[in-house]
Amino acid sequence: MSPISCLSHLECPKCGRTYDPDQPQHLCVCGSPLLVRYDLQKAAQSLRKSDLVHRKPTLWRYRELLPVREEANIVSLGEGMTPIIPLKRIGEKAGLRHLYLKDEGTIPTGSFKARGAAVGVSRAKELGVQLLAMPTNGNAGGAWATYAARAGIKATIVMPKHAPAITRSECAVTGADLYLVNGLISDAGKIIGRAIEKYGWYDASTLKEPYRIEGKKTMGYEIAEQFDWNVPDVILYPTGGGVGIIGIYKALRELQEMGWIGEKMPRLVAVQASGCAPIVKAWEAGKKASEFWPDASTVAFGITVPKALGDFLVLEAVYNTDGCAVAVEDEEILHAQQQLASSEGLFICPEGAATFVAALKLKEQGWLHPDENVLLLNTGTGLKYPAILQIDPPVLEPDDDLPAAMPSFISS
Amino acid sequence: MSPISCLSHLECPKCGRTYDPDQPQHLCVCGSPLLVRYDLQKAAQSLRKSDLVHRKPTLWRYRELLPVREEANIVSLGEGMTPIIPLKRIGEKAGLRHLYLKDEGTIPTGSFKARGAAVGVSRAKELGVQLLAMPTNGNAGGAWATYAARAGIKATIVMPKHAPAITRSECAVTGADLYLVNGLISDAGKIIGRAIEKYGWYDASTLKEPYRIEGKKTMGYEIAEQFDWNVPDVILYPTGGGVGIIGIYKALRELQEMGWIGEKMPRLVAVQASGCAPIVKAWEAGKKASEFWPDASTVAFGITVPKALGDFLVLEAVYNTDGCAVAVEDEEILHAQQQLASSEGLFICPEGAATFVAALKLKEQGWLHPDENVLLLNTGTGLKYPAILQIDPPVLEPDDDLPAAMPSFISS
Repeated sequence: MSPISCLSHLECPKCGRTYDPDQPQHLCVCGSPLLVRYDLQKAAQSLRKSDLVHRKPTLWRYRELLPVREEANIVSLGEGMTPIIPLKRIGEKAGLRHLYLKDEGTIPTGSFKARGAAVGVSRAKELGVQLLAMPTNGNAGGAWATYAARAGIKATIVMPKHAPAITRSECAVTGADLYLVNGLISDAGKIIGRAIEKYGWYDASTLKEPYRIEGKKTMGYEIAEQFDWNVPDVILYPTGGGVGIIGIYKALRELQEMGWIGEKMPRLVAVQASGCAPIVKAWEAGKKASEFWPDASTVAFGITVPKALGDFLVLEAVYNTDGCAVAVEDEEILHAQQQLASSEGLFICPEGAATFVAALKLKEQGWLHPDENVLLLNTGTGLKYPAILQIDPPVLEPDDDLPAAMPSFISS
Repeated sequence: MSPISCLSHLECPKCGRTYDPDQPQHLCVCGSPLLVRYDLQKAAQSLRKSDLVHRKPTLWRYRELLPVREEANIVSLGEGMTPIIPLKRIGEKAGLRHLYLKDEGTIPTGSFKARGAAVGVSRAKELGVQLLAMPTNGNAGGAWATYAARAGIKATIVMPKHAPAITRSECAVTGADLYLVNGLISDAGKIIGRAIEKYGWYDASTLKEPYRIEGKKTMGYEIAEQFDWNVPDVILYPTGGGVGIIGIYKALRELQEMGWIGEKMPRLVAVQASGCAPIVKAWEAGKKASEFWPDASTVAFGITVPKALGDFLVLEAVYNTDGCAVAVEDEEILHAQQQLASSEGLFICPEGAATFVAALKLKEQGWLHPDENVLLLNTGTGLKYPAILQIDPPVLEPDDDLPAAMPSFISS
């Protein structure tokens, strides 16, 4: 057994019960998701910051802090160490002098979901899983189907019929069993739940196995490393199931415990769409958990999650860092998507664009200061959302000539 | 002026004429593309392999060997250092024990075209360009429009109406002036040519400005670095305009001159589709240049180039490395795309899948040996080609249950 991973045990953040990590585990008996705990003292002794320089630019550079014990079980497509891109032009216009975007569009499957899938599938492989199943809003399904194929694990995926079409292709081409549902991800989840009970498949639903967070948290390690261990003042995160923001919070707390970063935490901002904003509603009311959001609907499909299993963990991360929760309109999201593309060359997903809208609002309110380091988290590439843009360029015949004038063809 | 770039001059590979690199230049007066030359002795003195360890995982880590003089002119979205992924399962099945794939799908814009655009646009910015224009089969246009937007340069793009639809979105959302043509890239090229003559725009067509190759060549540097300066035995490259294979060849020759790699060169294989195989036809006849391929058509749209301006450079690279040129069928390409996705978790573009088909053929012929290090170059993500796969998964109602059986829904 390789000594590299400092994996210790699984722990319930609600009731404190602990579980053996070397058996497949799902929720705590109290109903809460489980968190993975490490021997961080050992990690701090065996891993130095300077070691990282010699490691490949993938999330596996932090393998002491990841749950996979045997290197042979790592299922990788080279994911991680996505770039952090300065947004000078659009930042100056917005009065934010140090605005950055971490671009998860340049990762296998084109979405940050690859991180959770890489670590989650690797650990599932290590635990002997042969069949996994999950509901998805599209990108997570595509990612888990992809990594499951690489691992030789069979995947069953159920997604809403309105999920981005390309994510169907990802699931199907990688050999998953794919079903659509005439409903939301919560409906897909119920179908998966019944099937898991019936057939005994491994439940890979958001937060129902403990290792997806471990993949997502590597965004937090990377942010710290890329900012040279001085974390930014604020991180804005598009929040659906919330695993990304939970993971970043967990990662930064771990780095604090290891003494790798100081006491300062970034203020974490959960960004939602006004058509599905249960976390924002709970935060505004000062509550510790959210309520099911009826008739959820937004163009930022990935964050259409009416009630997240980990809502209390998201809210905890926001409260504990003096962060906040912000809802933005679909129209603003689409406008921001075009602004980021035409001003910065960043064709990102609507979920990512929502964070820029939130930053503008928070700047206007004075919550963000002009000199703060502000990081937007873009969770995926715009390439997966072709239907959002209606484009109707002129069609020329080979003998036609171009006009000197420069019209514009885009509408949305 | 920053002393980092060792840029020296521009040189015609056909007639030997030299040109001032600090003025905008296009073709040589003899009609040939120009190549960028560096003071490689100076580069070998000022840059050490060990320096690279401390540089970011982008193509700008090789900036001594890139043409951009001022750091402020670098237009970057974090491109480069794409992963090299072992293909163990499918390689063993194919009798190739050391089969790898370099995955350019995980780069901004989802295609290797981002490399040429990043360096080409950076240098155009440095030379004061404000308007650029080009024909494209889709991905290059998307990439150049994207980087032009980031640079604040206006782009005009003409692409065949059958080019992948998502590349239209990329051009339009980033603010380029986009036109479709009822014809091939060669028709688009003629329209652009006439407009450039009329309006004086900067010609960013393939090989008509010298800096796109410089971006693409970084794949060669990365391959050498990632293989720890022992280059693989064979590299298979999907070949349309040919800039990628020309660039890799140029990069490896430069590294040889610097003493960073030994005398061994990888055998370079130009892979084309049988519906458009002018390079293969020329190579089979032992010729130094290709002829225009009539009625060109293939599912691997990016390599539908009936006559490449740099054909003689591609053939030179193939001849000088004891390589070869191979044509593959569309059906084989589509089958390979599914095999790579379901066996290795790699949902890649058809152009990239073509290289796997070629590897199988060359293995059968005994041209590839089981123990050789064989590298497939995948030029882009499959996410940009949704129309290739026809998928028709079952649609469930929320109360429906999943079957235990596992049907398959994919056809192509």
